[in-house]
Order: sequence, then structure tokens, then C-alpha cells
Amino acid sequence: MVVRGAPAIGIAAAYGVVLAAMAAERRGQSVTIENLSEELRALRESRPTAVNLFWAMDRMEGKIQAEPGMTAQQLLMEAKAIHDEDIAANRAMGQHGAALIEPGSRILTHCNTGALATGGHGTALGVIRSAWALGRVAHVYADETRPWLQGARLTMWELMQERIPSTLICEGAAASLMRSGKVNWVIVGADRIAANGDTANKIGTYSLAVLARHHGVRFMVVAPMSTIDYSIDDGTQIPIETRPEVEVTSLAGREIAPPGASAWNPSFDVTPAELIDAIVTEKGVVTRPNRSKMASLCEGQ
Amino acid sequence: MVVRGAPAIGIAAAYGVVLAAMAAERRGQSVTIENLSEELRALRESRPTAVNLFWAMDRMEGKIQAEPGMTAQQLLMEAKAIHDEDIAANRAMGQHGAALIEPGSRILTHCNTGALATGGHGTALGVIRSAWALGRVAHVYADETRPWLQGARLTMWELMQERIPSTLICEGAAASLMRSGKVNWVIVGADRIAANGDTANKIGTYSLAVLARHHGVRFMVVAPMSTIDYSIDDGTQIPIETRPEVEVTSLAGREIAPPGASAWNPSFDVTPAELIDAIVTEKGVVTRPNRSKMASLCEGQ
Repeated sequence: MVVRGAPAIGIAAAYGVVLAAMAAERRGQSVTIENLSEELRALRESRPTAVNLFWAMDRMEGKIQAEPGMTAQQLLMEAKAIHDEDIAANRAMGQHGAALIEPGSRILTHCNTGALATGGHGTALGVIRSAWALGRVAHVYADETRPWLQGARLTMWELMQERIPSTLICEGAAASLMRSGKVNWVIVGADRIAANGDTANKIGTYSLAVLARHHGVRFMVVAPMSTIDYSIDDGTQIPIETRPEVEVTSLAGREIAPPGASAWNPSFDVTPAELIDAIVTEKGVVTRPNRSKMASLCEGQ
Repeated sequence: MVVRGAPAIGIAAAYGVVLAAMAAERRGQSVTIENLSEELRALRESRPTAVNLFWAMDRMEGKIQAEPGMTAQQLLMEAKAIHDEDIAANRAMGQHGAALIEPGSRILTHCNTGALATGGHGTALGVIRSAWALGRVAHVYADETRPWLQGARLTMWELMQERIPSTLICEGAAASLMRSGKVNWVIVGADRIAANGDTANKIGTYSLAVLARHHGVRFMVVAPMSTIDYSIDDGTQIPIETRPEVEVTSLAGREIAPPGASAWNPSFDVTPAELIDAIVTEKGVVTRPNRSKMASLCEGQ
């Protein structure tokens, strides 16, 4: 959890492979899958849900396998390319997503999906940033996003840096906010998108999707193509990381529940495609996503 | 917020009137509305949403007006009667509500509605307690209930005292919990119920009601007759207390958002009657509440 945000996790893993290659060279070893096996396994096992991790690992390992005699320095170029491509993808997503946003829009976002979660600019927050630059954003509400409070700690900081008018809310207030007509878009990122458009994202996202549909608020998912896992049919196959109970029973090191209290702490939830109005990638937008539209997006690459 | 929980607020206000009467007697004054006017106003202005406060104040002031020469000691009897009647009402609600609960039920509750929020036993938690005593409860999930964490701090404590199998969740996990089929009842209290059954309760309640309806989970509101405000037509007329932003931007004295961050902190939300499957009072149960059924409940008193 030192690195979080699906794209940032992928980029950090790529640089992690570079560090492993440098360590191998210092040991006098060549850069091969075998010689890096321990580090590669540790990186792959670091988080289960964000598919960007596995995508970046596949790409770095493919590079190692494709070119015998690969050096750490050459791998660094590949990691930097992944990083640069992510920033470019974020900019493209920002443009595609912002085109959907009407002037005067009021947006609710969840967790952190900005420069702190990606190579730069952001996914969902990148769309908000781009729409703000076009003068289309009236206000942004940020869910605090318990238990890790990424919304309170990170998203509010990014919004305030950009001087975007912003208000923090507890998750429990989102439904009232929608009912009062103060939101017309919910915009979130993704940790993994299945072939049918089902989307895993930070716990609490699915709740917002149900609430948005109930209130006639539109729901946008913003993620790079590397977040789409075409190998899995639907969201039921996405592994959901369950983290320690203490993250719920305490906050900032302070116990907030009685000693011995049990807690359930899933880090992610799955929003079914039918609750999503638009999936925005660097390759374009899929509205009302389904399996065939998602397949067309892939083929269009 | 030292006293919280609508019934407990009403009871505390009644004892507050007694303390005001004792102070008047110490000043050598008789117990009249005029001589107690400052304290009566302070008590009435302490919280806007929970109608039990105004109900208890009306009853105590009515007693003072009805019987000239009333003493503080006599008012103490009235306050104790309010307290005793609340406990008796809780027991009756517990029985009525528990009768609706099937054996093996898994229940999600929000905020704290137990002995710590009432004269004793509880409203929503009273139903859970009574259903547990009948062997009908398999598991109880408690929403932590940001920003004040009444669920984490108080409800978990009460559930653990009763040895009821319990699990704490963040609000954002409630939708996933329902989708996984782990909940068949959401049971909550109320701070004010309008004549048509619209119900104000702790922020986050309305979100649970929308989610419950989406997932086919039933939704029960448990509150004494003193919580029903027949003077207002519907929930739009219930005043909603908005509390300081710092309750959202900090936790246990620690800042969790950047300095200067804005926050929206409504303490309550309104759940429309059409999302409620049952309102349980000490006088009986109203299923699928509407204006005429709520009126019948009143007349049946």
C-alpha cells in the first residue's frame, strides 16, 4: 500500500524489474527470467486485483525473454516507455472523457485516480482535470474512501492543488447528495475490467453505481487499455483482495472499535457493466458497455 | 453529541427540565414556564432533527402548565415515567420486530440504536437483541457509520456484550455484502418519521435503503410512537442538522484531509416510505408504510 493506484502499481512493478536486473548484474549474473525469478515472483504476488501489475510484468518479462543479453539499462528504457505511455494514455483518456462532460457539471469521484495513482495526470481525475481545463466543471465532490481515506488524503489534495472547487463527503452522504440533484456524473477509475465490461475498483464504487442508477446520475469508468483483462469473461472471475481487519478497526493507529471486534475488509468491489454508462480508455469510449462492444474496442487497437 | 440516539435525547431532555426546576427552587422561584424559560429554550435548541426531543419537552412543559405549584420532585416522577415507558416501548418493539425475522437471518444495521441510544434495550438493536434471544439471528453486520463511528464504537460493543456474532464493515462495503447474499434484513432506527412514513435517520441510512431495494433485501425501521411527527406531511419538511466540517476532515483529533479542505457533513438523511418494508413501533407494525396506514397506527393508540 506504499504504491497504490492500478496504473502506478504497473509502472512501479516495471521499475522493480529494472532494480532486480541491476541486482543480478551486481551479482555478476546475466539478466534472465531464472536469475530474477525470486524478485519477479515477489512483484507478481504483491497485489492480486489490479491487472496492470500483471500486464507490466508480462511486458517486462517478454522483453527479457525476447532479447537474450538484455541489460538492466535496456530494461530501464522499457520501464520508462511504460511510464511515458501511461502519461500519454492519461492525456488521451482525459480528452475522450472530458468530451462527455457538459459545461456546469458536478462530479462525484471515489478513491484517488490522479497523478498520485498513475504515471501522471490521472484516469478518472485526469478526465476531471481535462474537463476543468475546458471550463466544464462546476464542482467536484470526493468520497473520503474508507478505510484508507485516499479520497480525503490524496484526491482532495490534488483537487486543491488545481484550485478545482471541491468538497469532501463521507461515503454515507453520497446518496443524499445525488437525491438533492447536486451530482450529474460519478467518475471512477478501475483496477481490472473484464471482457464484458464488469469493473473491479476500490470498495464503495459498486455502491455509487447502484445509487447513480437509482437517481439518474451517469456513471463513467476511466482506465487505460492495460486495465482490461480480456482473458476473463466477467467480474465474478476477478480476484478481490481482502486486507487485514485492523485497517477497519483502527484509524491512523488509533483503535476505533472494541478490542477483539471482527471486521470484513474487501479492498475492491465489482460493478456490473449494465450499471456503467461509459468506459473511457485511451483508444476511445465504450458507451453502455457489453461483451461485443468491448471486443470491438480491443480489435480497434 | 455527548447524548445521542433520538430516544436517549428525549429522556435526557426530560431530566434536563427536572434539573432546571431544581435550580429554580434553589433560587426561591416557583416552577413555571417563565422561570425556566432560558433552560427550556437551550434544551429545545440543542438538536434540530430528533423529534423525540420536542415530544419530551412538550410533555414536560405540559405537566408544568397543567398543574400550578408543580415541584421539581413531581417533575422527576414524570421524567422517570418517560424513561420507563421508553424501556417498555423498546421491549414491545423488540417483540413486534423479532416476529418478522426468520430463523437464520443475517442483519445489517447502521449507527447505534441500542441501550446506549435509548432508555434501555434499544430500537433497531432491540429488535436484533429480541430476535437473537429467540434464536433467529445468524449474524449481524454493523456499518462503522462515519463520521462519528457510532457503529464501530458503540454497536459493536453492544453486540459483543451480548455475544451476538458480529462483523464491522465500512459503509462502502455494504453493497458488496448485499450482492454476495450475506444480508436479508437491514434494520435501522429513526430520528423523525413524517406522517407518510418518510424517515429521517443517521446519514448513510438512505443509501442502505436504495441498496437494499436493488438487492431484494428487506428494510425495517424501528422507532417509538414518539418519533412519529404527524404534524409534517413528508420527509422534505424534516430539518436536517448539518454539523461542522471538521468532523469529516479529522478523526479522533487527527487531520485526515489537507488543511483548508471543505467538507459537507449532514448528520441525517431521509429515506422515502416507498423504500421501507416495515416500520415497527410499540403499538404494532406498519408494512409498506403510506399516509393512511400511518394514520391508522396513530388512531389505534
